[in-house]
Amino acid sequence: MKNFMDDNFLLNTKTSEKLYHDYAAAMPVIDYHCHIDPREIYENRCFENLTQAWLEGDHYKWRLLRANGVSEDFITGGASDREKFQKYAEALPRAISNPLYHWTHLELKRYLDIDTPLSGSTADEIWSLSLDRLSSDRLSVRNIIKSSNVKVIGTTDDPADSLEWHMKLKNDKTFEAVVVPTFRPDRAMNIEKPDFAEYIGKLGEAAGVSIKNIDDVKTALKKRLEFFVELGCRASDHGFDYIPFCRSDGNTAAKAFQNALNGGTVGAEEAKAYKTELMLFIGRELNRHRLVMQLHFGAVRNVNRAMYDRLGADTGYDCVGVPDCGGLIRFLDALEQSGELPKTVLYSLNPNDNAMLCSIAGCFQGTSAAGKIQHGSAWWFNDTLIGMKNQLKTLASISLLGNFIGMTTDSRSFLSYPRHEYFRRILCGIIGKWVDNGEYPNDIEMLGRLVQDISYNNANKYFDFP
Amino acid sequence: MKNFMDDNFLLNTKTSEKLYHDYAAAMPVIDYHCHIDPREIYENRCFENLTQAWLEGDHYKWRLLRANGVSEDFITGGASDREKFQKYAEALPRAISNPLYHWTHLELKRYLDIDTPLSGSTADEIWSLSLDRLSSDRLSVRNIIKSSNVKVIGTTDDPADSLEWHMKLKNDKTFEAVVVPTFRPDRAMNIEKPDFAEYIGKLGEAAGVSIKNIDDVKTALKKRLEFFVELGCRASDHGFDYIPFCRSDGNTAAKAFQNALNGGTVGAEEAKAYKTELMLFIGRELNRHRLVMQLHFGAVRNVNRAMYDRLGADTGYDCVGVPDCGGLIRFLDALEQSGELPKTVLYSLNPNDNAMLCSIAGCFQGTSAAGKIQHGSAWWFNDTLIGMKNQLKTLASISLLGNFIGMTTDSRSFLSYPRHEYFRRILCGIIGKWVDNGEYPNDIEMLGRLVQDISYNNANKYFDFP
Amino acid sequence: MKNFMDDNFLLNTKTSEKLYHDYAAAMPVIDYHCHIDPREIYENRCFENLTQAWLEGDHYKWRLLRANGVSEDFITGGASDREKFQKYAEALPRAISNPLYHWTHLELKRYLDIDTPLSGSTADEIWSLSLDRLSSDRLSVRNIIKSSNVKVIGTTDDPADSLEWHMKLKNDKTFEAVVVPTFRPDRAMNIEKPDFAEYIGKLGEAAGVSIKNIDDVKTALKKRLEFFVELGCRASDHGFDYIPFCRSDGNTAAKAFQNALNGGTVGAEEAKAYKTELMLFIGRELNRHRLVMQLHFGAVRNVNRAMYDRLGADTGYDCVGVPDCGGLIRFLDALEQSGELPKTVLYSLNPNDNAMLCSIAGCFQGTSAAGKIQHGSAWWFNDTLIGMKNQLKTLASISLLGNFIGMTTDSRSFLSYPRHEYFRRILCGIIGKWVDNGEYPNDIEMLGRLVQDISYNNANKYFDFP
Repeated sequence: MKNFMDDNFLLNTKTSEKLYHDYAAAMPVIDYHCHIDPREIYENRCFENLTQAWLEGDHYKWRLLRANGVSEDFITGGASDREKFQKYAEALPRAISNPLYHWTHLELKRYLDIDTPLSGSTADEIWSLSLDRLSSDRLSVRNIIKSSNVKVIGTTDDPADSLEWHMKLKNDKTFEAVVVPTFRPDRAMNIEKPDFAEYIGKLGEAAGVSIKNIDDVKTALKKRLEFFVELGCRASDHGFDYIPFCRSDGNTAAKAFQNALNGGTVGAEEAKAYKTELMLFIGRELNRHRLVMQLHFGAVRNVNRAMYDRLGADTGYDCVGVPDCGGLIRFLDALEQSGELPKTVLYSLNPNDNAMLCSIAGCFQGTSAAGKIQHGSAWWFNDTLIGMKNQLKTLASISLLGNFIGMTTDSRSFLSYPRHEYFRRILCGIIGKWVDNGEYPNDIEMLGRLVQDISYNNANKYFDFP
Repeated sequence: MKNFMDDNFLLNTKTSEKLYHDYAAAMPVIDYHCHIDPREIYENRCFENLTQAWLEGDHYKWRLLRANGVSEDFITGGASDREKFQKYAEALPRAISNPLYHWTHLELKRYLDIDTPLSGSTADEIWSLSLDRLSSDRLSVRNIIKSSNVKVIGTTDDPADSLEWHMKLKNDKTFEAVVVPTFRPDRAMNIEKPDFAEYIGKLGEAAGVSIKNIDDVKTALKKRLEFFVELGCRASDHGFDYIPFCRSDGNTAAKAFQNALNGGTVGAEEAKAYKTELMLFIGRELNRHRLVMQLHFGAVRNVNRAMYDRLGADTGYDCVGVPDCGGLIRFLDALEQSGELPKTVLYSLNPNDNAMLCSIAGCFQGTSAAGKIQHGSAWWFNDTLIGMKNQLKTLASISLLGNFIGMTTDSRSFLSYPRHEYFRRILCGIIGKWVDNGEYPNDIEMLGRLVQDISYNNANKYFDFP
Repeated sequence: MKNFMDDNFLLNTKTSEKLYHDYAAAMPVIDYHCHIDPREIYENRCFENLTQAWLEGDHYKWRLLRANGVSEDFITGGASDREKFQKYAEALPRAISNPLYHWTHLELKRYLDIDTPLSGSTADEIWSLSLDRLSSDRLSVRNIIKSSNVKVIGTTDDPADSLEWHMKLKNDKTFEAVVVPTFRPDRAMNIEKPDFAEYIGKLGEAAGVSIKNIDDVKTALKKRLEFFVELGCRASDHGFDYIPFCRSDGNTAAKAFQNALNGGTVGAEEAKAYKTELMLFIGRELNRHRLVMQLHFGAVRNVNRAMYDRLGADTGYDCVGVPDCGGLIRFLDALEQSGELPKTVLYSLNPNDNAMLCSIAGCFQGTSAAGKIQHGSAWWFNDTLIGMKNQLKTLASISLLGNFIGMTTDSRSFLSYPRHEYFRRILCGIIGKWVDNGEYPNDIEMLGRLVQDISYNNANKYFDFP
């Protein structure tokens, strides 16, 4: 029996151990897609306690608490930090095999040297210990990033954002990690939302364009993208329920925009035409800049409207949707037809889409990169031990695992970098088992290179970070 | 190599063995959802032979025989019990790794002390042995229930049912297990069926309500539900292809009902409006009584019409349908908006829905129970070794396994209680492996509690049985 | 640690080893569904080098190269055979756990006695060695087939095909393997394709029928099927995105055909009516001849139109589609209603359909064969280690694994017979593990029979080859 989360956690063969300890562990981290706030990096926020670091804004943990019957008062409400911590500590042991169980203990171990398993009965001891250790600036944002060996962070940013904090970070020579913005134009896409016209105003302002029609939107987005690129942006990111595609004459899209700008209601087909037109435009621009297009889909968002009205978006009320790939295929095909398909990463929230996405990616490969079209790392509800294993195994079965750009946290928490360790252990665990099982030659040099590529080199090359 | 189905069947680590033998095995059984006949419990039916106990009405076994090319004569037809037994014995060894293979041998071992594997060549020996042992009342229904340590049985009952046998059982002090009805108003929902009007007449009679409009249906169902509750009912159950949801003014639903009552044809949208209105009403009533709503969906029923015409429903001609969650999400949301969402268990027949259901459940949790919205145990075609493992692992990954209400047989067979043993062995097998693998602390007290909770305590608390 | 792909490759228990070596390995091969050219068998083509044998027409390998960023010049273009081989050798080690990795090395071992793992650095050595060994007629098509112990090959043939090469093969007493045509009337089905009318002309010519209406199409197909049967045909094969079903009066179908023949445009519903009518006709004819109907679906074809325009169909630009079973169920039901459902094999390209297909098959079984309706072997993107394991385990869980007709390559490559070895090793690996785990009695005679049945006997009996 192995000890709880010891040095060889998730490594069950000698080859796995060797691959992880000698090859993967020391590789730097590229966290190319996440949702942390660049301001908190610049200002080097220090967390006062674990509740601040863990439970402020992390809807994974909020869902865990809700599934344990905990009242919102102890989750997003007015209870004290200590009380909230207690509820989390009490819920955690029930979450056996949930990634939060492993993340929490990896974070305690790596950042606070705490090995005691967290539970209701150890909460007090751990709270005290952590307060002691947090009194230094050990858990300042910059120290977390540094001690986690993070080389690149890709945040998620609206085109209308001033990127003020990215500029400051760029000019701050005291901070080594590269922090780059990611172009996320969802609000320019969401023509059916009530605040669309208002947003378009902001976008125009940011771009210095007076937006009167759909061509002006394109001009504004193009200018903002260029500005993003100046600050190191290497990728866009798009969040959809499913990828919309509706080929129409430009007229339908143009009219839909006019209509929305004038406060009118936009029908589903018109909205689709508008989104299609804009996404094709953005795809071409990304390709021109040799940027990466990240497509996230398969989610149904804000399904609990009562809680949405109370807490807003991204608070833990989203779920997995049903498979749908028609629009995705036609969208990729349309860009490919004119030779303008950029490097693309496909992420679906439905784990059943793994084989479908791998097979779609394989239909649109090209010479601009090894693995030009990627099946992205297991995302959100799939960012689990079995979710990652399934994604890796499907990718290996249907495509070339060796070209995978690997892990990203997609996280809102600064303490989430051990998820890269978690991923690398799983990766080395799987590969070592294949070797032990006679399914691949025991060529440690070849294997070590594979593991280092997937851990770091592939993403570095693929995104071509500054 | 382990012996065939020995004491440590499915337990491959010392921790698994300890958890099963010291913690799980002795817990009582709550079989909260099944399809057995309360009359047979009251009258304490005795099975004369294994064919009666196994092959009368168990469409799992019928499908096995049909997949072996056996003629209907030996399945539902006129062949003798001994001949039918022979066909089953001959088919079984081909069914390697099918749950029927394990269930059959667990039942032979636990109820008849027979360890010989059943096959065409051992059929005669086992038939004789079983006849001997059945000559006592060892396999009377009450003795089966008693020796299986069953504390609670939830049957499945139509609102128009008199519950005569439940009343008799309640008053029978010689029988210790609690047998409660479950409210299953499918026939009141199925407005498009030819016998709908006739059924509504029966329902009205049972409720003492002259049903003339949709409000009368609600009144009748409300009265029947109250009567069910008096007899210990703690849950409803609903069988749908997919959860219907169509918000409309009450008018459409009311008219659809009027139309159906007058023998008219009801369109698909009108039927949906009617079902939505009624399900929302029932959901609110369940919540008022603090009852549990069980939703079963993802099935396509009676797909072989020739055999349906010959044998009727529930005879082995149903299959898994494609994923569909739009109606489910909107239905739960509608009840949640007014704060009237009851405790709910979600069961889909499509195993691909596991992640989707866990994620949907996580959007509607509440403080009325730990794990208020449950992803139900692996159902029907998924009630298999891999189906149960997948459900448990997905649940653990996306939610809190520790709050799971665990196994129920959903069975038509009185001999099916060893499926609880099968489930517990699988559960302990998985958890023990996690511990051995260093994924959870080796804290046997904590682990033992988890296992006992999932085996018994959680369901007991969740349903709040009398 | 096991050696790379040694004698006990994929066999991890003593029982697995015994089952494979003593029972499965020596069984002959029936490759009942593939896409090889009978002319190349008759003319006994000899491959000059590995690029010819491996990379001419095998879109699995083309996709691998594309996913490695290789230019089309080295795939389907003008680069030399040696250059193409180099690109393949360089890509392969990145394809860890891809079936191509295992197939490639099985083929090197079994046909060329080469044990060196292929990579960029060993490419030269292996190329030279293989040239030496190919200089004999060791890799002639007939010797490949003979040394692979292949007893039956089912090719895939258009009804308009003259079957010239099948006739020649039939009359060639020097060649022992049975090569039979398979009736694949897709082109007669594809009423919406621009070359439909032209094709109908060819079909009429082949059948000696002047085709003027839909009844003439049926007559022509009926005559061609009879001719196929004379040449040993035992099965049809059908490739669909999803199974179409639209019950209509014969009129709609008849008019749709007239329309298409006159060069008019056929609407989606009309096309469906035509296909339904024709498929029902074919199903009945198959049943009359006691032939097997193979249904392949769940694919989306030619999704990259730019590459389709350049390279045509079957060049590596197809992907997995979303689940859809409504048409399939209604189609099977329609044939079953009149008692005319033939033996049928269901193959979906979406691995998520496994449970659904097993459950559908179970609804339409009959007495004409054990396992009359089969869930076909893991197909195309699923013809992988995990794909095959999942198919076998799902089949075992929901149906009778013992009646499975087993593996077929569905391949365009003459070197693909080791995939039967791969399948048998996986099968024995799984079964041996079940036995070792106490899940099935250690009855080696019973187990050996199961394994031999699935490897050879079941398919032989099911198809009833000449």
